[in-house]
Amino acid sequence: MSHPARREALRERLRALELDALLVTDLLNLRYLTGFTGSHGALLVHADGDEASVFCTDGRYRTQSRHQVPDLRRLIERSCQLRLATQATEAGIGRLGFESHVVTVDGYAALAKVTGAELLVATSRPVEALRMVKDETEVAALRAACAAADTALAGLLAEGGLRPGRTEREVARDLEARMVVAGAAGPSFETIVATGANSAIPHHRPTDAQLRVGDLLKLDFGALVEGYHSDMTRTVVLGAPAGWQRELYDLVAAAQAAGRVALRAGADVREVDAAARDVISRAGHGEDFMHGLGHGVGLQIHEAPALSQFGVGTLAVGMAVTVEPGVYLAGRGGVRIEDTLVVSDGEPELLTLTTKDLVTVPC
Amino acid sequence: MSHPARREALRERLRALELDALLVTDLLNLRYLTGFTGSHGALLVHADGDEASVFCTDGRYRTQSRHQVPDLRRLIERSCQLRLATQATEAGIGRLGFESHVVTVDGYAALAKVTGAELLVATSRPVEALRMVKDETEVAALRAACAAADTALAGLLAEGGLRPGRTEREVARDLEARMVVAGAAGPSFETIVATGANSAIPHHRPTDAQLRVGDLLKLDFGALVEGYHSDMTRTVVLGAPAGWQRELYDLVAAAQAAGRVALRAGADVREVDAAARDVISRAGHGEDFMHGLGHGVGLQIHEAPALSQFGVGTLAVGMAVTVEPGVYLAGRGGVRIEDTLVVSDGEPELLTLTTKDLVTVPC
Repeated sequence: MSHPARREALRERLRALELDALLVTDLLNLRYLTGFTGSHGALLVHADGDEASVFCTDGRYRTQSRHQVPDLRRLIERSCQLRLATQATEAGIGRLGFESHVVTVDGYAALAKVTGAELLVATSRPVEALRMVKDETEVAALRAACAAADTALAGLLAEGGLRPGRTEREVARDLEARMVVAGAAGPSFETIVATGANSAIPHHRPTDAQLRVGDLLKLDFGALVEGYHSDMTRTVVLGAPAGWQRELYDLVAAAQAAGRVALRAGADVREVDAAARDVISRAGHGEDFMHGLGHGVGLQIHEAPALSQFGVGTLAVGMAVTVEPGVYLAGRGGVRIEDTLVVSDGEPELLTLTTKDLVTVPC
Repeated sequence: MSHPARREALRERLRALELDALLVTDLLNLRYLTGFTGSHGALLVHADGDEASVFCTDGRYRTQSRHQVPDLRRLIERSCQLRLATQATEAGIGRLGFESHVVTVDGYAALAKVTGAELLVATSRPVEALRMVKDETEVAALRAACAAADTALAGLLAEGGLRPGRTEREVARDLEARMVVAGAAGPSFETIVATGANSAIPHHRPTDAQLRVGDLLKLDFGALVEGYHSDMTRTVVLGAPAGWQRELYDLVAAAQAAGRVALRAGADVREVDAAARDVISRAGHGEDFMHGLGHGVGLQIHEAPALSQFGVGTLAVGMAVTVEPGVYLAGRGGVRIEDTLVVSDGEPELLTLTTKDLVTVPC
């Protein structure tokens, strides 16, 4: 979908909310609606159309914004939010929406000084609501990001990158470098490499701990392509797996498969979480799975919808989410298996294609 | 300075503001005050002391927070801000400060529902005020980050990394990989490599454009070490410099030197900006230097103080800032020269040690 088409979709929402315009100040929402990738800017989306809408950034991005946002009126200003609010007031706008989950208490006070508080209307993430459902351009970027991560892990495995003696940190750097070679702009978040007992820490940061024969090794990583984030976790065993490791792996793999089966348009996000969680709870490990099943991915590594016991809403075709159950046994080790998928009419499209069979690294 | 000492310094400010406690929700402020590096958490700093203070994060960080924050009472909760606000209310706190530049309009509404609006007092960046002046631990991290960047650039130059035919993107990746080898956790921001006419774009993103003999090549990059960000720009010429290139370089170098000379404790930030800007304006290029002279660096790549025409405040011993004038000639090329320095009693400490003589890459 083109940027003008996304803005038109937003305008439909503005009209439903009886807003004359929306002041977009979240930078990712700005990128989604215009293609602008700079670090400062704002957008006034007028309900009447693009002719009445205005994009604003500062002097550092004059040239860049000319290329990235050729289809909107552009202002170059230091205080874009206040300038656009002033313009809206001068244009006689009656109800100006703002992003109340982004604008700070100080920012609101500054806006209200310009517009008067009666003009400002808090809105509940109208752009994020659009962003939840990915268009073809976005799915293509996510596919490319997931492919870069798959390629990196395949290379790492094929070339002995997980040999005993290497440190978690070395493996993390190796994975990240391989993703860049495979076309990523960089990692999509801080790579997690956790070996042995460290694998029982859900969000472990790589250390100088060395890989050892017999370890469970958890790799949670992703690639960034055109601003879109992939997310994948695989857990492998170095050498022959012990009985408890294989049992743990099989349990998490079964839960992950159940979560994927439950992932369909119309499903309540809590049902999807429950489908995987029940498998783990029935095995007596409910307490050892202490996070949600998954989350949306896109321009952010974590975005709506949350697939969790505390989530709200139902899935729709085009939503991109992770499915990532884990069981963590403190002091021993943990297993997490995670895919990125796109909800579709039937089975979801699987974007992370690395095998989920238990990989044992020859040692 | 230890984390308890930083919290004690904050408490002095709280008492001056007649606050009974401060709810810290900014994650970098949280890291500064506790050492916690996770992605979700909050801290209630009680004016009475650490005994009455409470740290909160969610279940993913149970183990990590035990290691990183051993010296405070810890809560494991999903909604830390609301939980800590509830605790403060139950403890009978009369005036609870919050970070009004961080808390959103929606976040404030949720807090006020728990505490009542009369309890909440907006504060004006009290932790950031402390963070402006770096302690020895912080300066050591900045030194290490700057050294990693220096080492990376030295290696790149020595090993022919800037040869004609390479692309901006390749050079950026090479620099970033070298910084990691030199001890960085990663780049401190998106590396800028801009060759030829692209060097006239202040914040150019690396493309597949190839380096060519005769180009001005601008490299703006930094390393991340223990959460601290270095920032350095060097502009080199590929082959023998043309007359206009050398003139441009000498002008920016003179402005940069003037900025460094003006960088002393007690100076108004606008004076420092003016010291460099005047050199460029007198040469008739005032319009071609369209950004501020510099900015603070630390746990963020851009933080207070701003050295700019629009900045406010005076410098103090221990502030870490960049000095980075630039002159950009659209369609031809630009030069920026940037150091990271620490304000001291006399001359500032220069942390980025790469030469500022015009480097000409043999071609």
